[in-house]
Amino acid sequence: MDNIALEVEYIGKNYSGFQKQPDVPTIEGELEKALYKTFNNDIKLVYAGRTDAGVHAFGQVISFYADNKIDIGNLPKVLNYHLPEDISISSAKVVPYDFHARFSAKSKVYRYIIYNNRYRSAIYGDFSYCYPHKLDENLMNEALKYIIGEHDFTSFMGRDSEVKDAIREVYSASVKRDGDFLYIDFHGKAFLRNMIRIIVGSLCDIGRGKLPIDFLKKAMDEKRRDASGYTAPASGLYLMEVKY
Amino acid sequence: MDNIALEVEYIGKNYSGFQKQPDVPTIEGELEKALYKTFNNDIKLVYAGRTDAGVHAFGQVISFYADNKIDIGNLPKVLNYHLPEDISISSAKVVPYDFHARFSAKSKVYRYIIYNNRYRSAIYGDFSYCYPHKLDENLMNEALKYIIGEHDFTSFMGRDSEVKDAIREVYSASVKRDGDFLYIDFHGKAFLRNMIRIIVGSLCDIGRGKLPIDFLKKAMDEKRRDASGYTAPASGLYLMEVKY
Repeated sequence: MDNIALEVEYIGKNYSGFQKQPDVPTIEGELEKALYKTFNNDIKLVYAGRTDAGVHAFGQVISFYADNKIDIGNLPKVLNYHLPEDISISSAKVVPYDFHARFSAKSKVYRYIIYNNRYRSAIYGDFSYCYPHKLDENLMNEALKYIIGEHDFTSFMGRDSEVKDAIREVYSASVKRDGDFLYIDFHGKAFLRNMIRIIVGSLCDIGRGKLPIDFLKKAMDEKRRDASGYTAPASGLYLMEVKY
Repeated sequence: MDNIALEVEYIGKNYSGFQKQPDVPTIEGELEKALYKTFNNDIKLVYAGRTDAGVHAFGQVISFYADNKIDIGNLPKVLNYHLPEDISISSAKVVPYDFHARFSAKSKVYRYIIYNNRYRSAIYGDFSYCYPHKLDENLMNEALKYIIGEHDFTSFMGRDSEVKDAIREVYSASVKRDGDFLYIDFHGKAFLRNMIRIIVGSLCDIGRGKLPIDFLKKAMDEKRRDASGYTAPASGLYLMEVKY
């Protein structure tokens, strides 16, 4: 038996999130089917991050034990053949026996993409958040400084989360603009449910001048979801990389 | 009556090309429906370039005459509301009465995007040509020099084309690499049916070392479709800009 780690890329649009659920399409469900077809065996996989419905990934990581007879360099090709078009494996490697996609992860990098244009975009619509009001990325960068470091992020946690301890450490958070696109990058050990999307929702209201620059700090201090802004859509969020 | 020009962006995947045809979805058909809903009137539109099934556009241009009562800056928003998600209007302006989207066009810019990676990509799959063999962009740039200028492109014309005169002038053609992506940019007065996709198909065989660097010239000299390479898929091609 080998312990195998795969990097997984997907478009979240057509799935009810990563985690398997009955009767709805999920990334995990599709991966399990492809693994079954590849190994003729039920494979129990573990994964780095539970992305929500509609969230994309360039670098989700899964790991599993399998009796693998396929050349590891060809394994992505075989799995890609069995996967739907909007899910793909971008790398495969044999990892130490005690590697665990979730527990071994040191940190995660997420990116949120905003298409900042008065009109929606046919091509980028499903792959970003089309935001029609002019955003000032300098204001947004200033505002993000308040969330860097270790904080209680209760105000930025989705209401349906069952997590008790909302203290998380954000290593870095910044915005850069490239034409009509804003790339908001987050690096941290772990993030709460909807945390990035709620931060981005608030951040957009700051960037267009509707909320003060220290809004994220004030919201954080209140430790309740009502104190922060709206949840930005899933279509702009990407799990970019899991660091080990 | 105003003469109005719109820039149109679309994902080609779900359409049988730009030009209206009975019983199949087309970009023109969807635009006509949206124009009807907007102006309560049948609008006859003209367009710059007839993109084939599956080809995308960032900068297709259409023009039409209409009795317009909507602020021109808001017109894209109104039309976008009536258009499917994978078609959008990115700008609108009132143009001189004799402007014609096709006849006034001076030249066109097309881009072909190759995702050059051993494994297919979930996210870029519909928006590029996933090419698994290593391509040498320097070879490809050298090879492209042979098609710049005025030539008889009969060997690079789709078999179903009804065009008699296959002489076209290519102003520039070049490849640049950005990581796994190759961007192949073409600028010319006009292009034949499938011309860019046949050039790119041949170019890939040159870039991986299967065909000699002067293959495009030799193929051109033969003036028959059989002499050139395969037609690269529509998913990589974008009409970027129409110059007036």
